[in-house]
Amino acid sequence: MKQDYAYLELEAWLYSRMQAGRWQVGERLPSVRHLCREKQLSKATVLHAYQRLEAQGRIEARPRSGYFVCELPGSALDQSVVASTAIPGPVPVNSSELLTDIMLQGAAFDLLPGGQAEHISAGLMLLNRSIGRALRQSRGKAHQRYEEPAGYLPLRQTLAQRYQRDACQVSAEEFCITSGCQNALFLSLKACCRPGDLVAVEDPGFYGVIQLLEQLQLKAVQIPVHPQTGVDLNALERALQHWPIRACVVTPCFATPGGSLMPEAHQRRLLALANKHEITLIEDDIYRELSFTGRLSPLKALDEQDRVILCGSYSKALSRDLRLGWVLSKRWHKRIVYLQLITQLANSHFVQQGLNDYLISGDYDRYLRQYISELYRQSQEWMQALQSRWPERIRVDVPQGGLCLWVEWQQPIDTLALYPLALRQGIAITPGPLFSVSGDFRQALRLSFAQACSPKHQSALESLQTMMDQQSAQRD
Amino acid sequence: MKQDYAYLELEAWLYSRMQAGRWQVGERLPSVRHLCREKQLSKATVLHAYQRLEAQGRIEARPRSGYFVCELPGSALDQSVVASTAIPGPVPVNSSELLTDIMLQGAAFDLLPGGQAEHISAGLMLLNRSIGRALRQSRGKAHQRYEEPAGYLPLRQTLAQRYQRDACQVSAEEFCITSGCQNALFLSLKACCRPGDLVAVEDPGFYGVIQLLEQLQLKAVQIPVHPQTGVDLNALERALQHWPIRACVVTPCFATPGGSLMPEAHQRRLLALANKHEITLIEDDIYRELSFTGRLSPLKALDEQDRVILCGSYSKALSRDLRLGWVLSKRWHKRIVYLQLITQLANSHFVQQGLNDYLISGDYDRYLRQYISELYRQSQEWMQALQSRWPERIRVDVPQGGLCLWVEWQQPIDTLALYPLALRQGIAITPGPLFSVSGDFRQALRLSFAQACSPKHQSALESLQTMMDQQSAQRD
Repeated sequence: MKQDYAYLELEAWLYSRMQAGRWQVGERLPSVRHLCREKQLSKATVLHAYQRLEAQGRIEARPRSGYFVCELPGSALDQSVVASTAIPGPVPVNSSELLTDIMLQGAAFDLLPGGQAEHISAGLMLLNRSIGRALRQSRGKAHQRYEEPAGYLPLRQTLAQRYQRDACQVSAEEFCITSGCQNALFLSLKACCRPGDLVAVEDPGFYGVIQLLEQLQLKAVQIPVHPQTGVDLNALERALQHWPIRACVVTPCFATPGGSLMPEAHQRRLLALANKHEITLIEDDIYRELSFTGRLSPLKALDEQDRVILCGSYSKALSRDLRLGWVLSKRWHKRIVYLQLITQLANSHFVQQGLNDYLISGDYDRYLRQYISELYRQSQEWMQALQSRWPERIRVDVPQGGLCLWVEWQQPIDTLALYPLALRQGIAITPGPLFSVSGDFRQALRLSFAQACSPKHQSALESLQTMMDQQSAQRD
Repeated sequence: MKQDYAYLELEAWLYSRMQAGRWQVGERLPSVRHLCREKQLSKATVLHAYQRLEAQGRIEARPRSGYFVCELPGSALDQSVVASTAIPGPVPVNSSELLTDIMLQGAAFDLLPGGQAEHISAGLMLLNRSIGRALRQSRGKAHQRYEEPAGYLPLRQTLAQRYQRDACQVSAEEFCITSGCQNALFLSLKACCRPGDLVAVEDPGFYGVIQLLEQLQLKAVQIPVHPQTGVDLNALERALQHWPIRACVVTPCFATPGGSLMPEAHQRRLLALANKHEITLIEDDIYRELSFTGRLSPLKALDEQDRVILCGSYSKALSRDLRLGWVLSKRWHKRIVYLQLITQLANSHFVQQGLNDYLISGDYDRYLRQYISELYRQSQEWMQALQSRWPERIRVDVPQGGLCLWVEWQQPIDTLALYPLALRQGIAITPGPLFSVSGDFRQALRLSFAQACSPKHQSALESLQTMMDQQSAQRD
């Protein structure tokens, strides 16, 4: 195996042994020398794995004595059944380096990175032309000034109109243009939370949020997510009763990784809870327009008390390269614009103008209809490929929109340990544990249907199947 | 006056009275009711001014007794003579709302905002074409993926070559592309400091840094700046002996606002101090290429122990609208890329490619030569306009590069109080106190020569002169 990832594989192996009860709390783990010999690894690799487990608080080093277990991983529950029982307490976040590796591969949305289709849609060509035209029209003028921190006003007006169409009572003055949705989430969390605050998050949920909590020194309270209906509101209510939670990050439409869609009655109850407990709801609105069943309204549409900070972008529906997103909030607007100003001054005027012209022309809506039908077709192909390869051995829900499938295997596999093995074959998987602060969901993968399920993807699935079967055999 | 700024004017008035010794430490300030009546202001306005002075630690509220002086402002030293005496202790930063106002005006570089020249340089047209070409060449492909968080590799290679030309031993792998220089400063400070850390800053210095310190909960240790040679190294050395300083933000070439240029011997001593005290130097490299006396090397070129994090962009030399900058550091590279990833994933590929093609073609260097000669001519015009309007009454240094003049008046004026008055006449000044945590430099303005000194600018100077003379007369 590639030496780079040996430490991760060893970490996963040690972790799974701990999970299986091989060692008890206070018990000494194998010596570094022993592991080097047994696993044929360098001392640095073994130490790296131990140090990572130590950083996670699972083991401790005692001088001249070795490493000892100090906390056992939670037993592996079937997470697809929503636990309406105990809510795990707030935890400081320590996201894995693996995650950075995966993101750096730029591969989170394709099993076969670097294999983007040669086919270019006409809609994207029109977007390019619109940006080029904006550049020419501005001549050199745009280069002489910074755009306002809140963003190009006509774009904010267009966005306000689009959200009004989706039943939101909002105005252009409530929008702040950002560098994409991740940047919007960053600004929102930074605006409404202070270090040490508790934030309720979806479990499983978007890893970008987990990473942000870590960097902003916020603590996560994990709320289980139902694969069809989203955040478990009973669990959230109990958490709100137990902990002084400041904010809750939710994705009502096509939550990643599970793809759930929160029914309107749930959305109303969520808002009532937020109003009662005076918390801020941060709505991740990045997938909503990718609906297979017609236009949907955001949670913000039901928000009468200005509790919701909505974060959105066209990165998933249109272009990952525009680096434009937005935050929609009246209550926090001033603070978010200020944070935008001091962390990066502004966003490009010409890109905002190009996007705005494209939206106004109707080209975006035409493009979107075509893209959605493509995604729908591709999602069907992927469902079929998965179900024929693993009949009766996976759990996966029929997607109603978005870009992803959340696949849970019934056999004993560890997708985190699989990651480096798959990567050696050029296959970039997105392991389940990335979507949880607790590192659970080792038997799950997020798969994207943003690409067609090509013969190459089919054979990548076949390779994965072989690796999984080998792994299961070793574990049995 | 515009009610919005009344509180600032009152604050400035109270401050100047305190500075003049009107009240002593422990003495009661006029009651809110008294000031409302005397100044014809609302209660909210008076309270706002008092609360701001309280936040600055200058006065304190005692329940049912009123406001009392708890710290007098330092006596008004001639700040252009570098004080090699006492170093002020670390202070929590509380930057002014006024600053946000000025930035929101987008006017920090023009006395007459909205008055950008109609003249468009050929160099900027070529930049537009280069970006348009990059878009067409990428077709739709760029839209399907996120660029790597560290940035487009060919651009980083080009930047590395350019820095090598300026005597830096650096490679493409040490660069991280950011959303401009302010974003680079944000990532650098966030990477190497933790909340509560002490950071040495230039005084006067760039207000964007002051705002960042505030948001990152860092404390500023102000180091006086000599108008010709930059940071006073004796003062810095004493500060390093007294305080556990983590980092120091410096602008060796054309520091804003003063325009100083640090001699090589000073740069070597600065690095020796940083190495001895193991602090990080954050080099703001945004103005270096705008030199009237030939190419200069950055501090980074002398940095043998990887102490310097260099932050740069072409926002001042080429375009404020590209929103591209960079951080150059080997030691902190991994952490900075990670922070970039989680705060905004990446920057636009097509803009980076367009910029890179433009740099490689030689068009940028041709443009730069022409722009520098234009800036030189304009700086001469502004110097002449100032010296003929205020003969013997201002102190201003002949600029050797950059975009700005730092003008200090010998008459008793308060540029902060002048700001709202000038704005009513459409004139946006950048008052001296914005460049200092302490709020000093009330008799100074930063003026930019990025625009020609047109007849309109001349009459704006005339209006300023009238306002200043009125203000002086009232104060005498």
